[in-house]
Amino acid sequence: MKRASFADMNCSVAQALEQVGEWWTLLILRDAFLGVTRFEDFHQRLGISRNILAARLDGLVDHGILERRTYSEHPPRHDYLLTPKGRDLWKVVGALRQWGDRWVAGRGHEPVITVHDTCGKRTVPEPHCNKCGEKVRGSDLTTRPGPGATDPDFVPC
Amino acid sequence: MKRASFADMNCSVAQALEQVGEWWTLLILRDAFLGVTRFEDFHQRLGISRNILAARLDGLVDHGILERRTYSEHPPRHDYLLTPKGRDLWKVVGALRQWGDRWVAGRGHEPVITVHDTCGKRTVPEPHCNKCGEKVRGSDLTTRPGPGATDPDFVPC
Repeated sequence: MKRASFADMNCSVAQALEQVGEWWTLLILRDAFLGVTRFEDFHQRLGISRNILAARLDGLVDHGILERRTYSEHPPRHDYLLTPKGRDLWKVVGALRQWGDRWVAGRGHEPVITVHDTCGKRTVPEPHCNKCGEKVRGSDLTTRPGPGATDPDFVPC
Repeated sequence: MKRASFADMNCSVAQALEQVGEWWTLLILRDAFLGVTRFEDFHQRLGISRNILAARLDGLVDHGILERRTYSEHPPRHDYLLTPKGRDLWKVVGALRQWGDRWVAGRGHEPVITVHDTCGKRTVPEPHCNKCGEKVRGSDLTTRPGPGATDPDFVPC
């Protein structure tokens, strides 16, 4: 089954999903953030079929989200390491975790907690405006066509 | 093709993806955040097949992310509206947009910009620690087993 591509949509949400939105991909990245680097370890932790895992890892390498680094020549074996582009996905993975904690696990039942090393406390990061510094609520935001908008008649996406 | 379920994974990232991680779902939600509410409008904007769109909307309603509100009895027609659980996904959609803006569109080519109504400025929300208030970088965070962890031998996910 060939899925539809989002690659021709002029929208950064669609473009991001085109690179990381396939089933399994964000769980592979979640594990990469936890330090998993090797095919066999992803395979064992996720219970994903070998051919789908190989395809997803290849796609992430092609998009420059993971890089492949050889650690054995005979037999050929690689580590898969997050690039700067890949590490910048921590906010996406973190937002999914926060939402799952709140709406599925529920307070007091979080499978994983996050510690802010700088202050040493358990943290739930909150978005703040990078201009005024105030905490942002979703209802305080309005989207408008940006400098890369191509069709002024199209509702912004 | 039946996809594998993440429902039995004790991980909030997996649980979130189980509800919103299917191909098309986050783009449907993106449009819902922009005010789209009707089947025909989602269909036209996204270019998604009618049967997949119907299945995705049904799934979002089943998970309590969208609610169906009847606006015509004859013929039966509904609006699909974000619930509080659905609106809380704005951080996920926003994080995807930020990442796509940075790594695909590039600075100065963002298709859409976001304005913080409170201060009136274009904003790129940044995560801050909810304990110390400081801006958080991904490299400042450590994950640990939480109160809902079920297998102490399992690396936190």
